[in-house]
This record gives sequence, structure tokens and C-alpha cells, in this order.
Amino acid sequence: MQQSLSSFSELHKQKLEIHLKDYVHKLNAPSEIKESMLYSLEAGGKRIRPMLLFASLAAFGEDTSKGLWTAAAIEMVHTYSLIHDDLPSMDNDDLRRGKPTNHKVFGEAFAILAGDALLTYSFQTVAETPDEFASAETKLSLIKELSKASGAEGMVGGQAADIKGEGKQLGLEDLEYIHVHKTGKLLECSVVSGAILANASQETIQALSKFAYHLGLAFQIRDDILDLEGTEEIIGKPVGSDESKNKSTYPSLLSMSGAKEALENHIRSAKEKLRETGLQTELLEEITDLIANRDH
Amino acid sequence: MQQSLSSFSELHKQKLEIHLKDYVHKLNAPSEIKESMLYSLEAGGKRIRPMLLFASLAAFGEDTSKGLWTAAAIEMVHTYSLIHDDLPSMDNDDLRRGKPTNHKVFGEAFAILAGDALLTYSFQTVAETPDEFASAETKLSLIKELSKASGAEGMVGGQAADIKGEGKQLGLEDLEYIHVHKTGKLLECSVVSGAILANASQETIQALSKFAYHLGLAFQIRDDILDLEGTEEIIGKPVGSDESKNKSTYPSLLSMSGAKEALENHIRSAKEKLRETGLQTELLEEITDLIANRDH
Repeated sequence: MQQSLSSFSELHKQKLEIHLKDYVHKLNAPSEIKESMLYSLEAGGKRIRPMLLFASLAAFGEDTSKGLWTAAAIEMVHTYSLIHDDLPSMDNDDLRRGKPTNHKVFGEAFAILAGDALLTYSFQTVAETPDEFASAETKLSLIKELSKASGAEGMVGGQAADIKGEGKQLGLEDLEYIHVHKTGKLLECSVVSGAILANASQETIQALSKFAYHLGLAFQIRDDILDLEGTEEIIGKPVGSDESKNKSTYPSLLSMSGAKEALENHIRSAKEKLRETGLQTELLEEITDLIANRDH
Repeated sequence: MQQSLSSFSELHKQKLEIHLKDYVHKLNAPSEIKESMLYSLEAGGKRIRPMLLFASLAAFGEDTSKGLWTAAAIEMVHTYSLIHDDLPSMDNDDLRRGKPTNHKVFGEAFAILAGDALLTYSFQTVAETPDEFASAETKLSLIKELSKASGAEGMVGGQAADIKGEGKQLGLEDLEYIHVHKTGKLLECSVVSGAILANASQETIQALSKFAYHLGLAFQIRDDILDLEGTEEIIGKPVGSDESKNKSTYPSLLSMSGAKEALENHIRSAKEKLRETGLQTELLEEITDLIANRDH
């Protein structure tokens, strides 16, 4: 019998916050760069990626502590991507999670550098997983996975395609490419990293990858729906901001009811993939439901 | 008897250029991001860092081929740092090595992303060193070294201190902090990576680190001197551009003759450290002389 998601999340979130803060505090670096890194790391994110990693480890019945370093690393990568995406030359956002974006507080130069520093540090953080929790081979697999998910073949490639597509009428295939890469790959990396730490078979890793693929698309479609139906107070940014930027979204391509149907289909497929693994995937299922129904 | 530096450099530069190009070409990513990465990677750098790594391996009598992945990775990190440093919100440079800077050609967003992609890919590149050339433990050591040298405790920290100090009258200690971190750490990483690949003792690594410390400062002092005494045609940027940006330099703090004396002292100390190692350091010595006397 596994514990409930809320107590699991609370416990692991606490551990992660301490780990993240300690990791940045111990850097022997100019205070301004550390402040800029911490400002965005502590901006109150939902820590969905770390929770996916911990829940993935739990599905194998593994000690979740062994995932703390990789979970922190993935959250560093996610945070760096938000800092760079918000820059004036990218999405030019002034608010993130209801707070001024990094460059609004620290200036563009320090925002770029804080992002660079977080990205760089993420790989060191994985490499510093204690030997009792992961062999050198395992750590190298995690580093390769993180690099592929984050770089030109993953998140950066998705952001590049997103920028290229701005102001254009995109088809569903283009839109899916963008989201699978910009958001999906790092979510997938989170789930797969848990499996790598648990020495899972290739077959199980494949099934979990496909689970994360559907989960990632569900996540994005829900985001698009919230952008139109949410309230600024709850989602932390102006309602309809995608529309005002002339961005293609699932509701704009599929209509609102079509987008909601696609969301349900991806949630169903995600759960099917989980069942295929034969693991104790209750927590991963609960996270999936949470993503489908979240209001921010 | 070792071969001459010029034939050694030519051979290894050729191998490196092919390796770098192949590595980017094989990425399954949007063409624009690959073009932007390649533009700066192929902008005709001197490849000093890779040559230091290969010469370091040669000093141990090791097969230099085993350094190709890490050498490419370090050059990716160096290239990303140039792309980001040139951005309008950083140094705001329009020319680099006599060619338009990355953001002048591809726009700011793609310049930021190309830098991010190169940095991310560098860690994957080290991790992909074939097992016959490095154990998993060795690759993890290389990744930690690269991350420390590039991140908040290294290059990014130096760039942060540099930006913070702009327009201020810096003391020699501040100036040295900036250069040791902004330029020196990655040069040190190049030399030390060769030693790690050669399974060197901690004592030898220490001596090589100190060699690289002096070499890095010599490199920067020579840069400052060239900025005042060079010609635009040869150095690839306007003469006196540091001065016009009101940047503190070694000649401005020590006078030109004091800067030249400091350069000589660092070159002498660098060579002493090389001799302490008892290795076949002829190529590293030749690189040191080249840096002391270079005209661009």
C-alpha cells in the first residue's frame, strides 16, 4: 500500500527545496549570480518534474532518496529554461508565477548568466550522486538522458521551432513537435531517470517513455485550455496571453471541445502505458489525474 | 623526440574540425539552430583549448585520440561563452574574429539558444567518449571538471564579476579574479582534462593546474596589450575597444611596461611548473611561448 500523493509530494518537496537551496548556497561564486539563481529556483514552482522522478522510483519500490540529485538537476534545467524563455528577445514576459521575471529583477545580463550557471550546474549535480545510490555507468546514462532531453534534440529544439513558428498558422504536427520537445522531453527525462536509477529493462523504459509522451501532451493541452478559461489570479499571468501573441494552440486548431477530447485521449493512453509496465504506478496515475484537472 | 608544434597542431586541428562538424550535423534538430551553432563553431578560432588538451596528453606519452571528445566539448563551451558574451545585454559586440557576431546574423533569440544548445551538448559529448578511451569514472571526473570550470564557480562567475565591475576602477585583485575565472578556468580545465585522461597523480594534476593558472593570466595580459598595440586587421576587432568601454586592464593598472613585466613573470612561472612535472612538456612549452608572443 503506497502513501497518498499529497503526503508523498509534501515530504519530497521539502527534501528537494532544502537540497536545491544547499546546492546553490555552497557555490563559491559572486553573490549576485547566486541570488539570481535562487530567485528563480525558489519562485514557487510545482516541482512536477522532481515529483515524476520520485514517483517513478516509487513505482519500482526503490528508495526515493537516490533520485534527489537528478531531481534537483532537472529542476535546475527547467528553471534555466524559464529564465531564458522569459527574456525580451524570446517570449518577453514580465511575470512568471505571479512574480516579476528574473531579468526584470536582475537585468538581462544576469538573467542570461543565471540560466547558464543553472544549466551547467545541473550536470555536476547528477555527477555528484553518491556512489551508494548510483554506479558511474548509471550516472553517465542519466547525464546523457538529461543532455538529450534539454538540448538541440529536446527542449532547446522545441523552443527554436516555437520561435520560428510565431505569427504563423501552424498545423497540428508542427504544434505537437514544439510541445513534445519544448515541454515533453524534460517530463519524459524525469520519468525515465527514475527508471534508470532503478536499473529498469529497456522494455519498461520504453513503456514509461510513451506514458510520459502522452502525459506531456496532456500537460500542454491543459495549459492551452487554462490560458483561455483560467483566471489571472490563479494562473499567474494574463488570461488569453497566447492568443494576444498570436500563438497557435490546441483550442485554436481543434476548437475548445476538440482540445478537451484530445486531452482525455492522452490521459487514457498515458494510463494504459502505465498499466503495461506492471509496476506499482498509483502515484504516477495520481499525478496524471492532477495534470488533467489542474487549474493553474 | 616529439614532433613540432606546427605539425602537431595542424594534424589535431583537422581531426577536431571534422569531429565538431560531425557532432553538430548528426543532431536531429531544427536546421536553424544547427546553422547558428555551426556558424560560431566554425568562425575560425585558434582552438587553443583543444591544443592544450592534446599537448597535455602528449606530455604523458598518451594516444591523443582519446581526448577528441573532451576537446570538442571544451571548444563547444568556449564557443557558447563567446556567443552569450557578445549579446547586446552583455558586451554588445558586433564583430568577433572579424565576422559579424552570432546575434547579428541569427538574431538574439537564436544566439541565446545556440549557446544553450552548445553548452548542453558539451556534457553529452564528454559522456560519449568511447569506453576504450576512458572508464565511466574517468568520464564523470571530466564532466565534473568541465562543469566547475564553466559554471558559477568558474567562467560564468568571472563574467558576472566582469559585468559587475564595468565602469568601476578595479584593483589588481578584482581584475585577477575576473580573468582567472572568465578565461583561466577553462584553459586549466583543458590541461587538467588531458591529465585526467592519462590517469595522472593528484600531485601532477596540481602542478599542471598551476601551470595553467599562470598561462591563463599571461594569455589575458597579452590580450590587453594587443588591444592597445595591435591593429584592427590582425586582432579582428577595433583597437582600444576595452579602453573605449572604460574597462580596467593590466596596462591601465600597471602601465604598459608593468604589464609586459607581469606577462614575462607569468610565462616564467608557467614553465617552472611544467618542469616540476617531469613530463615531456615540449609542446606545452611551445604553446606557452606562442601565447606570450602572439599578435592576435
